[in-house]
Amino acid sequence: MRTSLDHKPSARFSQPPTFMRLPLCPEILDGEAEEADAVVIGMPFDGGASFRPGARFAPRAIREASTLMHGTAVDTEKDLFAEINVRDAGDVGISPFSSEITLEAGADAVAAIAQGGAAPVVIGGDHSISLAVLRGVARVHGPVGLVHFDSHSDTNPPVEGGEHHHGTPFRWAIEEGLIDPRRSVQLGIRGHLSHPGELAWPRSRGVTVITMTELTEMGLEAAMDQVIGKVGDGPVHVSFDIDVVDPAFAPATGTPAPGGLTSREAICLARRIRDLRCVSFDLVEVSPPYDHAEATSLLAASIIFEMISGLSDNAD
Amino acid sequence: MRTSLDHKPSARFSQPPTFMRLPLCPEILDGEAEEADAVVIGMPFDGGASFRPGARFAPRAIREASTLMHGTAVDTEKDLFAEINVRDAGDVGISPFSSEITLEAGADAVAAIAQGGAAPVVIGGDHSISLAVLRGVARVHGPVGLVHFDSHSDTNPPVEGGEHHHGTPFRWAIEEGLIDPRRSVQLGIRGHLSHPGELAWPRSRGVTVITMTELTEMGLEAAMDQVIGKVGDGPVHVSFDIDVVDPAFAPATGTPAPGGLTSREAICLARRIRDLRCVSFDLVEVSPPYDHAEATSLLAASIIFEMISGLSDNAD
Amino acid sequence: MRTSLDHKPSARFSQPPTFMRLPLCPEILDGEAEEADAVVIGMPFDGGASFRPGARFAPRAIREASTLMHGTAVDTEKDLFAEINVRDAGDVGISPFSSEITLEAGADAVAAIAQGGAAPVVIGGDHSISLAVLRGVARVHGPVGLVHFDSHSDTNPPVEGGEHHHGTPFRWAIEEGLIDPRRSVQLGIRGHLSHPGELAWPRSRGVTVITMTELTEMGLEAAMDQVIGKVGDGPVHVSFDIDVVDPAFAPATGTPAPGGLTSREAICLARRIRDLRCVSFDLVEVSPPYDHAEATSLLAASIIFEMISGLSDNAD
Amino acid sequence: MRTSLDHKPSARFSQPPTFMRLPLCPEILDGEAEEADAVVIGMPFDGGASFRPGARFAPRAIREASTLMHGTAVDTEKDLFAEINVRDAGDVGISPFSSEITLEAGADAVAAIAQGGAAPVVIGGDHSISLAVLRGVARVHGPVGLVHFDSHSDTNPPVEGGEHHHGTPFRWAIEEGLIDPRRSVQLGIRGHLSHPGELAWPRSRGVTVITMTELTEMGLEAAMDQVIGKVGDGPVHVSFDIDVVDPAFAPATGTPAPGGLTSREAICLARRIRDLRCVSFDLVEVSPPYDHAEATSLLAASIIFEMISGLSDNAD
Amino acid sequence: MRTSLDHKPSARFSQPPTFMRLPLCPEILDGEAEEADAVVIGMPFDGGASFRPGARFAPRAIREASTLMHGTAVDTEKDLFAEINVRDAGDVGISPFSSEITLEAGADAVAAIAQGGAAPVVIGGDHSISLAVLRGVARVHGPVGLVHFDSHSDTNPPVEGGEHHHGTPFRWAIEEGLIDPRRSVQLGIRGHLSHPGELAWPRSRGVTVITMTELTEMGLEAAMDQVIGKVGDGPVHVSFDIDVVDPAFAPATGTPAPGGLTSREAICLARRIRDLRCVSFDLVEVSPPYDHAEATSLLAASIIFEMISGLSDNAD
Amino acid sequence: MRTSLDHKPSARFSQPPTFMRLPLCPEILDGEAEEADAVVIGMPFDGGASFRPGARFAPRAIREASTLMHGTAVDTEKDLFAEINVRDAGDVGISPFSSEITLEAGADAVAAIAQGGAAPVVIGGDHSISLAVLRGVARVHGPVGLVHFDSHSDTNPPVEGGEHHHGTPFRWAIEEGLIDPRRSVQLGIRGHLSHPGELAWPRSRGVTVITMTELTEMGLEAAMDQVIGKVGDGPVHVSFDIDVVDPAFAPATGTPAPGGLTSREAICLARRIRDLRCVSFDLVEVSPPYDHAEATSLLAASIIFEMISGLSDNAD
Repeated sequence: MRTSLDHKPSARFSQPPTFMRLPLCPEILDGEAEEADAVVIGMPFDGGASFRPGARFAPRAIREASTLMHGTAVDTEKDLFAEINVRDAGDVGISPFSSEITLEAGADAVAAIAQGGAAPVVIGGDHSISLAVLRGVARVHGPVGLVHFDSHSDTNPPVEGGEHHHGTPFRWAIEEGLIDPRRSVQLGIRGHLSHPGELAWPRSRGVTVITMTELTEMGLEAAMDQVIGKVGDGPVHVSFDIDVVDPAFAPATGTPAPGGLTSREAICLARRIRDLRCVSFDLVEVSPPYDHAEATSLLAASIIFEMISGLSDNAD
Repeated sequence: MRTSLDHKPSARFSQPPTFMRLPLCPEILDGEAEEADAVVIGMPFDGGASFRPGARFAPRAIREASTLMHGTAVDTEKDLFAEINVRDAGDVGISPFSSEITLEAGADAVAAIAQGGAAPVVIGGDHSISLAVLRGVARVHGPVGLVHFDSHSDTNPPVEGGEHHHGTPFRWAIEEGLIDPRRSVQLGIRGHLSHPGELAWPRSRGVTVITMTELTEMGLEAAMDQVIGKVGDGPVHVSFDIDVVDPAFAPATGTPAPGGLTSREAICLARRIRDLRCVSFDLVEVSPPYDHAEATSLLAASIIFEMISGLSDNAD
Repeated sequence: MRTSLDHKPSARFSQPPTFMRLPLCPEILDGEAEEADAVVIGMPFDGGASFRPGARFAPRAIREASTLMHGTAVDTEKDLFAEINVRDAGDVGISPFSSEITLEAGADAVAAIAQGGAAPVVIGGDHSISLAVLRGVARVHGPVGLVHFDSHSDTNPPVEGGEHHHGTPFRWAIEEGLIDPRRSVQLGIRGHLSHPGELAWPRSRGVTVITMTELTEMGLEAAMDQVIGKVGDGPVHVSFDIDVVDPAFAPATGTPAPGGLTSREAICLARRIRDLRCVSFDLVEVSPPYDHAEATSLLAASIIFEMISGLSDNAD
Repeated sequence: MRTSLDHKPSARFSQPPTFMRLPLCPEILDGEAEEADAVVIGMPFDGGASFRPGARFAPRAIREASTLMHGTAVDTEKDLFAEINVRDAGDVGISPFSSEITLEAGADAVAAIAQGGAAPVVIGGDHSISLAVLRGVARVHGPVGLVHFDSHSDTNPPVEGGEHHHGTPFRWAIEEGLIDPRRSVQLGIRGHLSHPGELAWPRSRGVTVITMTELTEMGLEAAMDQVIGKVGDGPVHVSFDIDVVDPAFAPATGTPAPGGLTSREAICLARRIRDLRCVSFDLVEVSPPYDHAEATSLLAASIIFEMISGLSDNAD
Repeated sequence: MRTSLDHKPSARFSQPPTFMRLPLCPEILDGEAEEADAVVIGMPFDGGASFRPGARFAPRAIREASTLMHGTAVDTEKDLFAEINVRDAGDVGISPFSSEITLEAGADAVAAIAQGGAAPVVIGGDHSISLAVLRGVARVHGPVGLVHFDSHSDTNPPVEGGEHHHGTPFRWAIEEGLIDPRRSVQLGIRGHLSHPGELAWPRSRGVTVITMTELTEMGLEAAMDQVIGKVGDGPVHVSFDIDVVDPAFAPATGTPAPGGLTSREAICLARRIRDLRCVSFDLVEVSPPYDHAEATSLLAASIIFEMISGLSDNAD
Repeated sequence: MRTSLDHKPSARFSQPPTFMRLPLCPEILDGEAEEADAVVIGMPFDGGASFRPGARFAPRAIREASTLMHGTAVDTEKDLFAEINVRDAGDVGISPFSSEITLEAGADAVAAIAQGGAAPVVIGGDHSISLAVLRGVARVHGPVGLVHFDSHSDTNPPVEGGEHHHGTPFRWAIEEGLIDPRRSVQLGIRGHLSHPGELAWPRSRGVTVITMTELTEMGLEAAMDQVIGKVGDGPVHVSFDIDVVDPAFAPATGTPAPGGLTSREAICLARRIRDLRCVSFDLVEVSPPYDHAEATSLLAASIIFEMISGLSDNAD
């Protein structure tokens, strides 16, 4: 088995960057199976962004920042990539102009990975790509539970001309039966709603909405206990919108909202993912043109690392 | 009544920006009354800044960042601008070279708004403009209580050539009888004093000074309980210097001081304003040339939103 | 007649910014005629961008930078806005997600302005919006000549999912009969083509293509003499893609190409517009998230000023 | 004699920075004479800025950037500081709030240096500080000729509250008899005037105004020949406003104007100073908060070096 | 005794910056004794950086940011520099190309200061310079205890060609007998290890390693109680790597790790230093090219101030 | 033959970036021959930088910027990569801490490529890596002619501890007999020398030094004619230090010097390389932490493209 050590002889700032300097295996997307537990892919699409665009550069920027990282977490003192097999499959062939083409290509790529037995780990892109991920995952796993970290609920109806913009993915996912709303939780919702009834829709479908204020009051661990209880033992997709984190820690995002998580809280929440049976992940809404000193990209890479680590525990 | 929905058909990044895309009504400053509960105005003056200037660009930058926001807070699920009537009156005709002209024009504008029955919501400018606000407010309401969030006490004596610099407004306000020091509290004071006796002066006048260390130790809610007890039922002015927030969350300020509030704490404190009878507000010391990804301006806009929301509760 | 002097009492950095602090008259777009010689409007759409997005913020940023400018050019010592009547009509109601909606709304707005007898001065947006402008203009003026400054020819065929992306507007304009290719010139083309035959298409239709190398060799004045000879006396649309300027002078653009015009050359070329009978203008592809110290936006505003000045001479 | 070699053992990025790592001799301002040919001083005042402030940080930033430079120009292959004696006297004790105090302290410092037989080399600050320099110089040398590089004429009348703002210094200098307008030239004027008659005033006093367009047409060397002819053999002050340079080369300035000099042209013009009998210099309007990669500060330091080099030739 | 008040007449943004505008006394490094309690020196070396370089500019940037600060802390209301005698001795004559020369020059400078009875307060530079500090300190005080704040343990073995890179200083310090590992604690370790056994080495020597997770769980005060218990009454060196702070608060560092301390926590920990018998300090790994609005440099300066304040209490 | 079209289906901003999206073939460095005309490799070493470091990130940044470019130049309308075979071999295994290891690894890699019949196209790193390139090239081609674009001569002697810093490569190259000084030219030298005799050394060896002033006076084409005459028909190495370009166009460099080439001039000079028999190239001293909007990296990529294009003509 090849590991991240392959690239060791090079200084970390050298070579075209893959996620954490893992082997690049684009052939995985062509169904040329390679035995893997998780496969990182990028969906560099931001045509669904309603305010600041730029998330199309996120897969590139997050891969670049991730090369600083090593595979052994301080808190486990174990080499993750010696335990599980992770690959970087490059980016999906999206169209910058068409959410239809993007959603189709994205769903196909995710399904191909899932079919091969690996967990897709998707780097967006704006949040509209989560619909692609869920469509691909549902083809293999059927309707899944959802753990969704975000400052926005993203269950809005489409607007004229914007069938699948970044505020809609989970509405479509529920309406298309890709997720089971009774096994779904949204955490970190805060700031402002586009209209007073915005949160009524997901709640009416059975989704639990935990606002940032509620999350703070109940405490992170208690909130995650509630999440785990609600989501249960079935397969779960985790969607992490970086704007759930405060702009101080993650300035590079499309629709920032002050008052969010700290990086420590975000990593802490991501670690509880190990208590779920995750089958897929996405991390979305990093917009690199607004980053400083790669802070957002590096935090995003760290959270993706925690997501993949959660798989490792499941593998036991 | 016109509401923020007027501008709805436009994408949020379009049109010359007013605060939260509210209607622009500069005629309010000419006494042409329009029925309003609160009126936002800018005082783009930074001639009182002792270190980094740039706050003259704050009204423009905060308006721009605020266009991302909607009028319905997640925590209330109510449309604020359907409840109360808020207008943007543009900027006061300050002089960039003269604090005298600025203070006079500022006081007149604030008085005109207050006379019309609305609460002035003033975007500075450096902190010296608070004297203009208090002079205008006192003309209508008499001496008011003060709740002052800041890392500095701003009760210094004038220096040669700098009668009204940004470290002096509350000394003048006390000496001119604009605020009642026994109904005044300063919160978040930290960092360094220009001389050892700096805090003795406000305390000797009856002002309560709660340092950042004390604020942390007593907890935000307990501190605000103390504030509310001290300030009582009379009319209150709230002055929010953005440097009470830590530079990680609010880098764009003139005299930053590490060790400040998080954005969540700042918003939390601002929400308690609803327990006061506020007649006016200012938010000062945002210096946009030092901002990144509009983080400071967006946080400032969020705090102003909370201030105005406090009015709404008072209106009940 | 109102002039830019209306706003004089305010410092230039104050008030919600309109183009050069001109009066804001959005009612013009509703056909509520106001006598004007030129009307500035924004089309903040960047859904056609193939590389860096962000041009949706250009109308806002260019307006903001333009407030630094006065209406009297050093080289004429005449107050432009005392000679001709110019208004800012705000932004067109585009959809960030749909080029179809955007093109339709854009064409309607341009046609409304042209119908009223004024020259539309359009601030993009990416270059795809030029098709909207030309559709609107042609409704009133019929097929027009074209003077097109750009590092790219933008006569590519559509791609799957991207019917009207920013590399296609002039192909569509020719195919739809909106411009007369025999009265059309492209200047400044340089860098790299997406395929070897890219320039053959416009040439085969009769368009004159002057590359940057040719422009440098023949000299700016000689090149413009050739342009004027080719375009003749009929109505002309001028389309200025900021990327014809070198990234040193205009870093904030979507697909930069080193080796471009200096700012002095760009202004010099724009001044020769007065020798044409221009009926409309656009300036596109400024992407503010990539700007520094507003340099690109300020240059763009200066070029727009020269465009409008050209009208003034025509008016004589 | 001490030279810049004193600091040689240190890497250029180390030590508190003086101009080109020259010895720091603040005692010169106290009249404690040290034999010097030229003395660099800072006047960190920006209270006269009408648009972007920040020039108060220019002396610090220019000193910092200058530490990269060595004392031997490629084109002379001579060590300037072995030929003439140059010192850095630190900054004048200005008041950030008062142009009166600043002008007085500035004039005294300049006079002290000039009295000691050295040429003051003043780093602003906004352009209002040139009045301080000329007042100080005139005390020792009487009325001097003026060579003024700028995109603005800076001969405007005062405004209410702004007696000595940065658009006024040369009007005051003429009215106070500090410069001889018939021996004065302004070069590089471009962009926009605040009113159509702005240039008539200096011309009516006898000042020659060479606009950027005229400068380009006549060529740099011919223009400088004309300057030298006009200014003659008497003592001359050179005032260099960095905004005469294009924003691409000098983004960090208060009121930028596209279409300016390149860095090569600016250095070329500065080199002709050696053909004049200069008694003092100033370089103004660098605003470091708007700089990138210290480009403006480094160019400013290079131009100051050329100014001082001109003295060297005079010394022969 | 001279104090920081010496510089009072100048505005804080003027003059070549020393640490907190303290007197510059480079002669201290030549053994020319001046009575001082603490002496600040810079070691601007970053040749040991494995990822982002730039720390060579840290002494300059931290001095510059520190000029904003005054000597009287809000929490003590005492003027520190009236209580103890602090000087800035400028920078050590390092070589940017050679860690050998740098380590030798650094150790000599530190020993000279310590021999004179003062506490060296060293501004790095990357972390490799801590070995220089400890070699110098040990010459005077013998083996010392260590309190080490960092996200990395920095006890790695050398690599080929990199004998003393920034991941090795404390391994060398233990092997050379400069610190007593049984009186040594590392706090804040987090993120990723270069190999699973990385922390075993320091633990096997007797060092206590408190990870960030452990620090959070036990609480800051309890952790510092444990530190104080372990370190005891003997002489102690404190090494503060700025990357122990989260990138939101300290973006400008060479190997950032999300999930770190807040600024308030960092200052709080630094304040407990007063309970130790510190004989020397260093603050390392600030890389100014990655800073924004001087936030990292200002925080670093604040922490250095707290370190020096700790001396003051010891002096009682 | 594979071409750049391989990557076509992806949007240009996607996938881990290779130079111009060419195939990545690291096996070339292991001598696993693949038929190629030119091979791009990175040497990400900046341990030789005397002022600003950061060039270690240049290969990554230049590859990233280059993905915007296509293979068909406007001025040729030919697809370069259809004419000649170009590969990206990734980065050499340098040591960030050791110029010895770096020089050896670099020379081996270059020799391997040259041995295989291809021209090495090396992306630095600081200028010290040119010695590695020349050592590798000379092993295969013997002493070569040199065309060296730079603002510095880089023929300084070593300093203590800095045997091979970035100011020395061509001194070593001459002393080691790697280049023939009588077939060597340096162009663009300007700014300041570290001592008056600096240029005497290369001239005494037979190198022609053309300063920036001389280059401007004689004109670019005439200068290149002289270069071609001097260098003759033998094999030539071209070394392009990005700091020969003005900081306005290339801000991201270690020791910037105002007054340099424009981007158009730089590209124009690079195009004349086709008149030489080039066997190898390097482009050095891009320091990405100081870049803005990727302007420097994109210009560097464009110059590399012109270098490779020159090979194509030679191939005819």
